Amino acid sequence: MNLKGLKSGERTVLDHVFWANGISRDALASASAFSKTRANAAVAELLEQGLLEETGEQVPTGGRRAETLRLSRHLGVLIGVAVGATGLEVGVLSPDLTVLAHHSEPANVGDGPGPVLSRIRALMRELLAGCSVAPRQVIAIGIGVPGPVDFDSGQLVSPPLMPQWDGYSIRDDIAQDFNAPVFVDNDVNLMALGELWRRQRSLQNFLVVKVGTGVGCGIVCHGQVYRGANGSAGDVGHICVVPDGPRCHCGNLGCVETMAAGPAIARMATDAAEAGQSPMLARLLAERGGLRLQDVAQASRAGDMAANQVVQRSGALVGQMLASVVNFFNPSHVFIGGGIMRVGPLFLAAVRQSVYHRSLALSTRHLDIQYTPLGDRAGLIGAGVLAMQESLRNMEAV
Amino acid sequence: MNLKGLKSGERTVLDHVFWANGISRDALASASAFSKTRANAAVAELLEQGLLEETGEQVPTGGRRAETLRLSRHLGVLIGVAVGATGLEVGVLSPDLTVLAHHSEPANVGDGPGPVLSRIRALMRELLAGCSVAPRQVIAIGIGVPGPVDFDSGQLVSPPLMPQWDGYSIRDDIAQDFNAPVFVDNDVNLMALGELWRRQRSLQNFLVVKVGTGVGCGIVCHGQVYRGANGSAGDVGHICVVPDGPRCHCGNLGCVETMAAGPAIARMATDAAEAGQSPMLARLLAERGGLRLQDVAQASRAGDMAANQVVQRSGALVGQMLASVVNFFNPSHVFIGGGIMRVGPLFLAAVRQSVYHRSLALSTRHLDIQYTPLGDRAGLIGAGVLAMQESLRNMEAV
Repeated sequence: MNLKGLKSGERTVLDHVFWANGISRDALASASAFSKTRANAAVAELLEQGLLEETGEQVPTGGRRAETLRLSRHLGVLIGVAVGATGLEVGVLSPDLTVLAHHSEPANVGDGPGPVLSRIRALMRELLAGCSVAPRQVIAIGIGVPGPVDFDSGQLVSPPLMPQWDGYSIRDDIAQDFNAPVFVDNDVNLMALGELWRRQRSLQNFLVVKVGTGVGCGIVCHGQVYRGANGSAGDVGHICVVPDGPRCHCGNLGCVETMAAGPAIARMATDAAEAGQSPMLARLLAERGGLRLQDVAQASRAGDMAANQVVQRSGALVGQMLASVVNFFNPSHVFIGGGIMRVGPLFLAAVRQSVYHRSLALSTRHLDIQYTPLGDRAGLIGAGVLAMQESLRNMEAV
Repeated sequence: MNLKGLKSGERTVLDHVFWANGISRDALASASAFSKTRANAAVAELLEQGLLEETGEQVPTGGRRAETLRLSRHLGVLIGVAVGATGLEVGVLSPDLTVLAHHSEPANVGDGPGPVLSRIRALMRELLAGCSVAPRQVIAIGIGVPGPVDFDSGQLVSPPLMPQWDGYSIRDDIAQDFNAPVFVDNDVNLMALGELWRRQRSLQNFLVVKVGTGVGCGIVCHGQVYRGANGSAGDVGHICVVPDGPRCHCGNLGCVETMAAGPAIARMATDAAEAGQSPMLARLLAERGGLRLQDVAQASRAGDMAANQVVQRSGALVGQMLASVVNFFNPSHVFIGGGIMRVGPLFLAAVRQSVYHRSLALSTRHLDIQYTPLGDRAGLIGAGVLAMQESLRNMEAV
């Protein structure tokens, strides 16, 4: 890996190749607004240095070369980390974001940053060893966390789900084992960044909404992730949906997070089981000692009426929150991710119905609401995109 | 006026001078990232062509020149038009957005585009004649309208307040009398653009909320006006604030516009007057045959308790809507404009209380909520900024 001392044109070429995830020479010249001569010279230099590689077939007639240019695996690897409220995932990715190795396991962010990050460092070392990659070959590390992040310092700021992490330097912690640059962002921002990359930046204005233990939103505006004046943009979990609803941990009444996220779904399902409304939920409750989001999802997919009602109630409330957001932001797409994806189409249908009912016709005329196509991998891919994007951005061009 | 055939560097210089509203040579070189030599050469050429002018005193010691560079009045004039639901304003502005002449009068957009635009063209001709400026000296015309606009075509799209204007070509209408390019945008977007210019683009992420006959919001994101996927971004008037509230003309219940905008304020005040709760409102009602927003504002400023309650109720509801928007967008500033400004500090206090109560601490830690500093002129200045910005953008650089 040798990302220093590149010419500015070469950096631009690497950036376009990364975001296009493979591109022909002609398309590259057109995308970079360079002359073909200039683009080809930069490509030749980058191939020579081993930073780019070519794939695809030679045209035997001697016509123009149709190979696809990709970032070279010789650049090194990226490490992506997705920290959730109840689990963590670590992955080793190639520069084109192929997942080379990954591992996920339950975790409790409430244990504080020390033990959680220590475990993450151990997993990083194990996964690298499993891929026969040395730590010095790590280009950069991207980490997503479920709370508001001050992007420049890479620190969480007053995170409600993980108060012990407030102001803790995740970078310094990781630096105990790794010399690579570390970039930290909110988990949903990274899901949005991952989707921006997957679509090769063709979508300019869209949202990613994560529904799991909490409710959060990643915003892409003018083709860039938007973090807001204080890094708390997209903090939609505390938008009020029922003015006289139950009190949320934030102190207000009827926040969508406290009414419709994973714990609320589990609570509503438990109530239904205890009220004798669903033998299936009652059985799951007895077997497991408590219901989780995935249990309700399982019951709903199996057609349990009470579980379906709970899912529809949650979807309607998330949709009510989204209706306000869609009126304000007029996105082209809303991608929904997080644990709620296990529920399947019923939740999505309830969200759509609620949004289309409450939003203005003009805002929803072309609005596309779907589960995030990156699925469970959205957080990990997004962390990899962050690591590569920031490495390319921070290269010293000469 | 001679904006064609400029070199790209000269266009960049004009753009920086416009947005800085006067700038020294040193600051210009630094802002444009040009070398001083390159910046000075472009400035010399533009001074020679009469597109820039210098103001300020010569330094007699022969030290470096400290003059301020401005766009030259020889460039021509801009015309700004602000069409409201109940009035219109036309102004002639210099390239540095000094208002040279302006006129406002009541109007009813419900009369349709034909009569309203015909009147606007007549006012343009009168105002230009009053300034002794020929129509061919008009650089460009900016027009703000109270509805969603497809920016590229310059046409209103399904505007609820002015259905007869749907798809009408405002550009072709104005072209009957003027050869200058015409740019059309939503009125609140232009208020936001005006504020962006006033702050010399130093604020990157803020909102302007207009409360008058309706409620709308202009969004600045990453230092640019954000219009959304279909041009309807900022359409916050139909965000629900009272789920079982009265039916709005959009078909839904409890929209902030139907609960808290000018007509709702007038209606609540009329109810108070008729219920014998306020001798002052009753007297105004008897005198005028009906109460308008400005009557309630007058009574509130005079300390009338019933009027104050109406104003506080409206402010609390607007604040409730804004709390959702602030959680989502995390702006640095919210500027409030429109007819509601006549009410004064009481409305603002109610909005602030409601937002700070309902938004997350991190979103509001540095949030500044105030009336738009451009006041009644915000729409006109914004229309002028649009005209100049788009003219500079559309210049053919060689």
